[in-house]
Amino acid sequence: MSKALDALFPTSRITRDASDLAHWGSDRTTAYQAAPSAVVFPETLDEVVALVRLANAEGFALVPSGGRTGLSGGAVAERGEVVVSFDRMNRILGFDAAERLARCQAGVVTGALQAFAEERGLFYPVDFASSGSSQIGGNIATNAGGIRVIRYGLTRDWIAGLTVVTGAGDVLRCNNGLVKNATGYDFRHLFIGSEGTLGLVVEAEVRLANPPGPQRVMVLGCPAFDALFQSLSAFQQHVTLSAFEFFSDLALTKVRTARDLPPPLRDACPFYALLEFDESALDAASSAFERCLEQGCVADGVLSQSDAQAARLWALREGISESLAPQTPYKNDLSVRLSDMPRFLEAADALISQAYPEFEVCWYGHIGDGNLHLNILKPPGWSEQAFLERCHRVSPELFRLVAEHGGSISAEHGVGLLKRDFLGYSRSPEEVALMRALKTVFDPNGVMNPGKLLG
Amino acid sequence: MSKALDALFPTSRITRDASDLAHWGSDRTTAYQAAPSAVVFPETLDEVVALVRLANAEGFALVPSGGRTGLSGGAVAERGEVVVSFDRMNRILGFDAAERLARCQAGVVTGALQAFAEERGLFYPVDFASSGSSQIGGNIATNAGGIRVIRYGLTRDWIAGLTVVTGAGDVLRCNNGLVKNATGYDFRHLFIGSEGTLGLVVEAEVRLANPPGPQRVMVLGCPAFDALFQSLSAFQQHVTLSAFEFFSDLALTKVRTARDLPPPLRDACPFYALLEFDESALDAASSAFERCLEQGCVADGVLSQSDAQAARLWALREGISESLAPQTPYKNDLSVRLSDMPRFLEAADALISQAYPEFEVCWYGHIGDGNLHLNILKPPGWSEQAFLERCHRVSPELFRLVAEHGGSISAEHGVGLLKRDFLGYSRSPEEVALMRALKTVFDPNGVMNPGKLLG
Repeated sequence: MSKALDALFPTSRITRDASDLAHWGSDRTTAYQAAPSAVVFPETLDEVVALVRLANAEGFALVPSGGRTGLSGGAVAERGEVVVSFDRMNRILGFDAAERLARCQAGVVTGALQAFAEERGLFYPVDFASSGSSQIGGNIATNAGGIRVIRYGLTRDWIAGLTVVTGAGDVLRCNNGLVKNATGYDFRHLFIGSEGTLGLVVEAEVRLANPPGPQRVMVLGCPAFDALFQSLSAFQQHVTLSAFEFFSDLALTKVRTARDLPPPLRDACPFYALLEFDESALDAASSAFERCLEQGCVADGVLSQSDAQAARLWALREGISESLAPQTPYKNDLSVRLSDMPRFLEAADALISQAYPEFEVCWYGHIGDGNLHLNILKPPGWSEQAFLERCHRVSPELFRLVAEHGGSISAEHGVGLLKRDFLGYSRSPEEVALMRALKTVFDPNGVMNPGKLLG
Repeated sequence: MSKALDALFPTSRITRDASDLAHWGSDRTTAYQAAPSAVVFPETLDEVVALVRLANAEGFALVPSGGRTGLSGGAVAERGEVVVSFDRMNRILGFDAAERLARCQAGVVTGALQAFAEERGLFYPVDFASSGSSQIGGNIATNAGGIRVIRYGLTRDWIAGLTVVTGAGDVLRCNNGLVKNATGYDFRHLFIGSEGTLGLVVEAEVRLANPPGPQRVMVLGCPAFDALFQSLSAFQQHVTLSAFEFFSDLALTKVRTARDLPPPLRDACPFYALLEFDESALDAASSAFERCLEQGCVADGVLSQSDAQAARLWALREGISESLAPQTPYKNDLSVRLSDMPRFLEAADALISQAYPEFEVCWYGHIGDGNLHLNILKPPGWSEQAFLERCHRVSPELFRLVAEHGGSISAEHGVGLLKRDFLGYSRSPEEVALMRALKTVFDPNGVMNPGKLLG
């Protein structure tokens, strides 16, 4: 493998340096040991095609690598794979003003696309805490969601065209940026969310939106879980929300401690909601707030009076994940329908307090989308191995609850390695068998990210 | 086949009556001869499963049938197939208020869902001229678009869950109405637009929207094709459009004659645009109109002053297809990107006036989505056969132009029988081979709508 691979890439774009292997062979998970055999940095579609064909010919495996901000091990290379980094394919190749389409190489960083849009008076609405380093290709591979899904949808909703190299080394140019194209199976949507198991996303046509008007942010203090949903419903009846996030008081304490931030409200509440909406809806939002106060589903609230204050309020939500990192949290990324959420939460809370009496459990997430991030924190005295084993013992019980309530065991983090063995809680045996069959169609020799998603 | 099939359905729900076979064996195309062997009317998911398994066991083919408003022969049964009509599965089974999801059987008529939404203060935005008879299952099978795509997207964007029976007789419950679900390949999106070739859509969770405020309609007269796009751009900079349609003066003449309608403007123009937008954007729209007048891209215009007048203006656009029907038009449903449209139109116009000097050619469509409906009208003296042969001779040249301009040979009507032999103009050989392989995965014995889409 080595010789032919070295012939494909100049020495400046292939590395076997130990620290490079460790760096590019892992994502934000900590439970896996990075052990790729090489990292390559293609610069063109042709190089990617040649690489995939070589992998098929010589029987080595490829792991696609973007911003490595994933939380499920989808970009981990732990078995001698060749990591395909898109760091050198980070250009925006063109802009179609009439269609508002940006043609992006897979390695374009989310934040760079957002800035590109802003420069043109437009808006790329998919946003999350890791937008400063996550890449478009990775966003597509996991159908990334984030903080504005309630208004703008997921990555899937903004991809008008995809250029992919299948596991067999064929180039597919899917949909070409068209709004309407009823000519058979839409492979674009099959590749979105496929976690690099069918092929490599090399380029995407990304649609941009008109920017929203000025935004306002509110943080509400809620006395209970149920009250969050009552508040959501009260606001949604009259206000188009750009975001509806929540966090528990423990999550707030963690982020405040890590960043030395003041509390948003005078008195602590068990739960907080963070809302964002158009300034033009301020009157409607204020009325909704008053109604919530009267009904008792909100105890107190604060409204941003400036962009700076809005950013400080957002920091309380967006800083949580990072503030927990030192405690190597076991992350659950769950979703159920809003209508099933209260019953699910009651059952999950009971299970968790019984299963993890000695662990801290941090609840937060994109609750307006039915998406909970439930982080179990490793106590200082525990080894990561022992902690993980314990969490893995409880996970099936939690996932069984998710399944009973019709939910998903991975709302937006993907399956990767972390949830691979639990896929059956969200997909039926027939679906898993069909997924395996599709994998074989697109990647007959199994060179694409083997072991991820389907195991 | 007969006996086992008769054992599955009571006599009231299976028919072999010649007029029934003709009725349920065809759609809105006229070029094909309906010749199914039977029509069945299942009422439950279990009946559909039993039917598909019987088809596999006994080797007969199934043709799914919704409102039969298709324009590409996708629901035509011309080779002794059993037609599966969803006319008896036309109930809305439930409503999830928190998620705004309507659980619809496949046979729910589009208009009935729109009315259901309206009764709840909500809105189902997918709309088109045939919404009074088209069914949700058929809309899903073709990813139906229509008149409000520019604002609300296609059917795909509103389907949060699908229950399907694969060609192998397996039941898949896809996505369960979740907003976020990152657990592998999204079969929902594979079935949307698959024209019944992978399995049968039995049920769907359809998301509903907040209704828009009051709407206003404008009809603009434009001196040339280019002027349409200048107008679109001028309006889109400041107004969120709910629709941007166009029609040629010939199309207007046809619909006015058929329905005895007055002209919208004092003087005829070569082309007309119909715009719809929120009344709250009226000032911005009026300014855009003034700018267009000054720039010369609009010659005259009319603004609706009442809902009744808005409906009369819409009738000019929505009545076109029906008004052409007596001339058995050869329909082309093309799309290219807006940015490629002017060059494409110039080339297409030159080709068509040279290829069809003696035929009337009617241009209209959802131009804001890059979607042209180009109808060639059969002159009275021609037999349908001779007319079709002539059109089929020219089609490859037109489709070659579409391909050269990166467009689609079927924007929203699907491929069916009509465009099957031309699929290669929009999909590469690699894509078609992969489509065939996927078909085999989901429908190993080829019982699902054989001959459609892939031939």
